[in-house]
Amino acid sequence: MRAEIFEQPAVLSRVLAEESGPAERIARELRRRGVRFAVLAARGTSDHAAILGKYILGCALGVPAALAAPSIATLYKSRLRLEGSAVFGVSQSGRSPDIVEYIRAARRAGAVTVAVTNDPGSPLAQAARHRLLLHAGPERSVAATKTFTSELACLYLLAARWKGGKPGTRMLKDLELMPGLASAALGLDEAVAADMSRCRRMERCEVIGRGFPFPVALETALKFKETAGIFAEGASAADFLHGPIGMAKYQAGPGFRALLLLSKGPGLASLRTVEEKLKAAGVGVLRLGPPDCPDFLSPIPLAVCGQLAAYHLALLKGRDPDHPAGLRKVTRTR
Amino acid sequence: MRAEIFEQPAVLSRVLAEESGPAERIARELRRRGVRFAVLAARGTSDHAAILGKYILGCALGVPAALAAPSIATLYKSRLRLEGSAVFGVSQSGRSPDIVEYIRAARRAGAVTVAVTNDPGSPLAQAARHRLLLHAGPERSVAATKTFTSELACLYLLAARWKGGKPGTRMLKDLELMPGLASAALGLDEAVAADMSRCRRMERCEVIGRGFPFPVALETALKFKETAGIFAEGASAADFLHGPIGMAKYQAGPGFRALLLLSKGPGLASLRTVEEKLKAAGVGVLRLGPPDCPDFLSPIPLAVCGQLAAYHLALLKGRDPDHPAGLRKVTRTR
Repeated sequence: MRAEIFEQPAVLSRVLAEESGPAERIARELRRRGVRFAVLAARGTSDHAAILGKYILGCALGVPAALAAPSIATLYKSRLRLEGSAVFGVSQSGRSPDIVEYIRAARRAGAVTVAVTNDPGSPLAQAARHRLLLHAGPERSVAATKTFTSELACLYLLAARWKGGKPGTRMLKDLELMPGLASAALGLDEAVAADMSRCRRMERCEVIGRGFPFPVALETALKFKETAGIFAEGASAADFLHGPIGMAKYQAGPGFRALLLLSKGPGLASLRTVEEKLKAAGVGVLRLGPPDCPDFLSPIPLAVCGQLAAYHLALLKGRDPDHPAGLRKVTRTR
Repeated sequence: MRAEIFEQPAVLSRVLAEESGPAERIARELRRRGVRFAVLAARGTSDHAAILGKYILGCALGVPAALAAPSIATLYKSRLRLEGSAVFGVSQSGRSPDIVEYIRAARRAGAVTVAVTNDPGSPLAQAARHRLLLHAGPERSVAATKTFTSELACLYLLAARWKGGKPGTRMLKDLELMPGLASAALGLDEAVAADMSRCRRMERCEVIGRGFPFPVALETALKFKETAGIFAEGASAADFLHGPIGMAKYQAGPGFRALLLLSKGPGLASLRTVEEKLKAAGVGVLRLGPPDCPDFLSPIPLAVCGQLAAYHLALLKGRDPDHPAGLRKVTRTR
């Protein structure tokens, strides 16, 4: 897991080098066909990348994007009316049967289908009309790390190309920052380890973000569960204040921490409110960020820091991050 | 809270009597304008109703539906391209500023807008072109109960009417079952109380469903947090097996329980798998359902049982379900 976390700058560089061309070709078809809405189908870690995809498509292009409920197609056998849409299947292995089945159904229904996957020979890559590849090399760790940030990079690239404009446009230029942002986050390794050593008794954690960092809150909570075995939940700051804050005073204690994911965006103010309320309820608060980058790219360095946090917490607890209890790499959900 | 839980059969009867006409008028406009995708905007409890809306629109009509990320419009000021879509704002108070703002933006963008709200005089009801009303009477409990099932009923009605077909069609007939299903679930009050008294040391809970019961898992977890102050999380059985199962053996003990929400649908098999794996990891498992009704209506009785469970657990822990710590009825997120 640790080795793969540290590969991320190189993986992101490869995605920028290799996938800009394919992203431009897909973007041309999406513009030519006047695609007006998008559907993203994914599970687990890839689902968190897909949620970021929804934010970036909405913010950069104004394209409404739905997260597929694959069970609508697979369990309930409903035929979705997807003509005129773009449907993205996101899966590192390309072998989640429900995602493959969803993409096949979407293609039959007339959608422009795109596989975002690490394996060009996978059933998902074969099922979709287009491919964006993760260039992550084999991912052996059960807890996905490098493929998550690579999925983010592919979705950013696609959004930036779909948006169009001159080469050298601001968003495309900003994407060149990704490898460096991942490197800078890796430079925080010791600081993150020290933070974790101060809360090694943590067994429950609420991970909170707003806006672009929100999907990373979901992903970081999943890493905490998978590798450190703690009961962690990701939440939006807005939703957290709507109800879950009610549990804060009862859960406060050394076993419970809130982890705030900060970025230099308009969501920062609500994170400050959350922090005040949690502290008033006696809850210990940890912070990651804000990284020094455009708000929309903050998920890259925040995800890396979250992975490091989960890794160190697992070691501190004597739990093996490379062999999490009861997990296999590919879950064959139907 | 308890009184409002017990009002649900009457509320559901009023929705059937009063909102069938408005639902039919909205449905006619949606069919006439050839609406091909939907967006649902909501927060907290209403967001869980909106997720059920996504399932029912997908399964009954094949219409892809996106859950809005309101921050795309409110924080990031992006203009969504929503011509040709239907946009539903779901909020019992009709006063969540971000939902109101989202509906206004959607209406300007040319969407068919519908407010699903308890208050016909609210800003949300004024902002939207159409209204579906909850007929729940004043909801005084901070933890929303009767307005949740009423929101479900409004979304079911709209989907059934949008689907169209002869009066007396199967789905419309099935909807007549809702008040009776809520009554039957209320009849389980003592059984649910007895279940809870056997796990009063529970401080953490994973609430798990698949397909139609999934949104109720999210909602039940929120009720547990708000009223009983325990750290609960809702999950899809499919996603749970993808990673979170890894924490099971570390979290097992009297403080941790899994609560499975069952329905007589195609998701039942994966709940059985989850149950086996949890028991193998030493986790105590509670069950609600399956209720004796069509799968798509199982959210009504399961939601009622979940509300009763949260209420009884709060009392057993000496926590006041009517005055949850640190919560107000309307959270004014922007």
